[in-house]
Amino acid sequence: MDQRIPKGFNFAATYAGIRKQEALDLALMTSETPASTAAVFTKNTVRAAPVNLSADHLDRSEGIARAIICNAGNANCATPDGDKVARKTARAVGTLLEIPRELALVASTGVIGESLDVTKIEAALPGLGLQLSPDNFELVARAIMTTDTVPKMAFAEIKTANGVVRIAGMAKGAGMIQPNMATMLGFIFTDAAFKPSALRRMLRSAVEDTFNSVSVDSDTSTNDSVYLMANGASGISPKKADRETFEQALRQICEDLAVAIVRDGEGATKLLTIDVEGAPTDRDAKKIAREIANSPLVKTALAGADPNWGRILPAAGKTDVKFDPRKVDIWLNGHKVCERGFRADFVEADVQRTMEGPESTLRFRIRGKGKGTSRFWTCDFTEDYIKINAEYRT
Amino acid sequence: MDQRIPKGFNFAATYAGIRKQEALDLALMTSETPASTAAVFTKNTVRAAPVNLSADHLDRSEGIARAIICNAGNANCATPDGDKVARKTARAVGTLLEIPRELALVASTGVIGESLDVTKIEAALPGLGLQLSPDNFELVARAIMTTDTVPKMAFAEIKTANGVVRIAGMAKGAGMIQPNMATMLGFIFTDAAFKPSALRRMLRSAVEDTFNSVSVDSDTSTNDSVYLMANGASGISPKKADRETFEQALRQICEDLAVAIVRDGEGATKLLTIDVEGAPTDRDAKKIAREIANSPLVKTALAGADPNWGRILPAAGKTDVKFDPRKVDIWLNGHKVCERGFRADFVEADVQRTMEGPESTLRFRIRGKGKGTSRFWTCDFTEDYIKINAEYRT
Repeated sequence: MDQRIPKGFNFAATYAGIRKQEALDLALMTSETPASTAAVFTKNTVRAAPVNLSADHLDRSEGIARAIICNAGNANCATPDGDKVARKTARAVGTLLEIPRELALVASTGVIGESLDVTKIEAALPGLGLQLSPDNFELVARAIMTTDTVPKMAFAEIKTANGVVRIAGMAKGAGMIQPNMATMLGFIFTDAAFKPSALRRMLRSAVEDTFNSVSVDSDTSTNDSVYLMANGASGISPKKADRETFEQALRQICEDLAVAIVRDGEGATKLLTIDVEGAPTDRDAKKIAREIANSPLVKTALAGADPNWGRILPAAGKTDVKFDPRKVDIWLNGHKVCERGFRADFVEADVQRTMEGPESTLRFRIRGKGKGTSRFWTCDFTEDYIKINAEYRT
Repeated sequence: MDQRIPKGFNFAATYAGIRKQEALDLALMTSETPASTAAVFTKNTVRAAPVNLSADHLDRSEGIARAIICNAGNANCATPDGDKVARKTARAVGTLLEIPRELALVASTGVIGESLDVTKIEAALPGLGLQLSPDNFELVARAIMTTDTVPKMAFAEIKTANGVVRIAGMAKGAGMIQPNMATMLGFIFTDAAFKPSALRRMLRSAVEDTFNSVSVDSDTSTNDSVYLMANGASGISPKKADRETFEQALRQICEDLAVAIVRDGEGATKLLTIDVEGAPTDRDAKKIAREIANSPLVKTALAGADPNWGRILPAAGKTDVKFDPRKVDIWLNGHKVCERGFRADFVEADVQRTMEGPESTLRFRIRGKGKGTSRFWTCDFTEDYIKINAEYRT
């Protein structure tokens, strides 16, 4: 048995015929007992049917769930029968596990605008039920992949005053990806015990600094969701210092998964970690970091290993956060390239060489009394991104 | 003499040695008499020295100017001596033309972060003075080009109750372009007579729907400026109906120039005109149109002639404008591809074929009582954009 998996959770995955190519495309994740469950959903005005259904179920159950079912290959979004398909899916899971259907949550990822055939899910579910086991975690991480090139998983073990609790997380996606393909999904499980309200607060805070602080192509999806289930199967309810340790571990899991998504971004060859300091507020710092992260000119400069601070400064200037450019210093991979808004004294070739590696850092500091900071991750913008997404038909 | 040029304006251009390659890089545009002058500048927090100086001069002169000097090859931005260089440039123009220096405006475009050598401008100015003529309009349109592949000009002749007035405009740029290169610039001249306050109002309104309604790569520049000079040399001060006709012509000139910029966008092969209808307000419609225009996934789909409405709907959903996706219809080149948020009944190959041409249209309608509309222009996103901007050094 996989010791990294929190107690009391089981996993199963199969090929249900939803994808055109034969590859795992349907996954079931269950808790043996009712689990406190929190979720963060896409802020896009256009939300897929499974997102609406799961939000509704969590409302009605007041943050309790027993299972999540997830399919890849079809987003169940923008089709006339989407709501019905999501409802029927949850009902089938309820029947299989003999639980109220409100305790079943639904997630989908894949093509937008094509109907999802629910009979394929209904037909595959009994087989999934027989297969449920703690050992199939990675199988599920593979089943939820779309254009991902690698499964994305992260694990933590937290030693509390009363014993060990575990967290295991998986994620897929890279923003809006591939012709018609959508979605970033995250599923995180712990055997620690928390009330739903505490879980919600912890997840929101962790997601804000991690999943909500990455960008591949600035496009958001109709299906983006991150779930956190806590079933208490460890018998441990972390308090005070232990809770802080737990929160830190949860944040690290979210960060590992979110950064893995950027690394695996379409066409990406390089990861850029952006730190903004000295903004009036954290929120302001994040606005600046996000604008730098989304600038096609900054992302192409990274691709070309070009220490082009003349693109970074105006990208930061696009937000409504006011700052004096003459108080800005910028570092690339530790080399100061801009000082008080002007070119710093640096050797271009030296900085270039460091930017040819797979990981770069950008530090953007506003001098003064501002305490706002933000860390954000992005990737380079390469010709492969265009090739993948233009899908030239000629 | 070029009959398209408004009376009382003169132009000159030369190579002053600012660009590395020998090509026109310094231009002088003058009015024989003090002209009402309006300007719209970049909203970027980081503004280049010439932008700050020109804004200050127009404040002090209360909207009157005699000359604009513009150089290409160096943005005079983010350098320690930028303000001094801009001031000295204006002073040299003042001396040459024997006018107060406040009546001289300055514009720059090119590399950010490298000092602009003002002695080159001072040395070239006397020659420019000798060359001033109405016939050098196109020469100036060429001198202000950076990565532009064609000069961009537009002309109008308005028959008023009291005779003919003329408008002539030129522009350069395509957002933030080329390694370290910046700027969209527009210079528009008319021999109609207007007060500075009326001119400002007309220019702002025209720019909002034209220069501010285009996107190449979503990046804004430190130097973006559009100027409008009205010297009254025709002796005609348009009133009522004539003024409306004039405003319409001005808007058309701005539109022609702005659209020419998008057409000439880096790596662009296709123009997309986006119309949004049925939003709560025009401002909301513009937010939606801009988000569609800036989406890398929409722009790559256009490159690939892919009628991918599943990317358009979520791109529209990224703004804070709330709408019901089930009330949205989308047309591509007149073919309805999305009806009430779902796939419409269309033949993919038919729509694809139309999208292989150089011009496409996208209509995004929200059903209901909303009266907000917006027109926006964008271009496709091709591998050439990446090639141009990544400047691979290996």
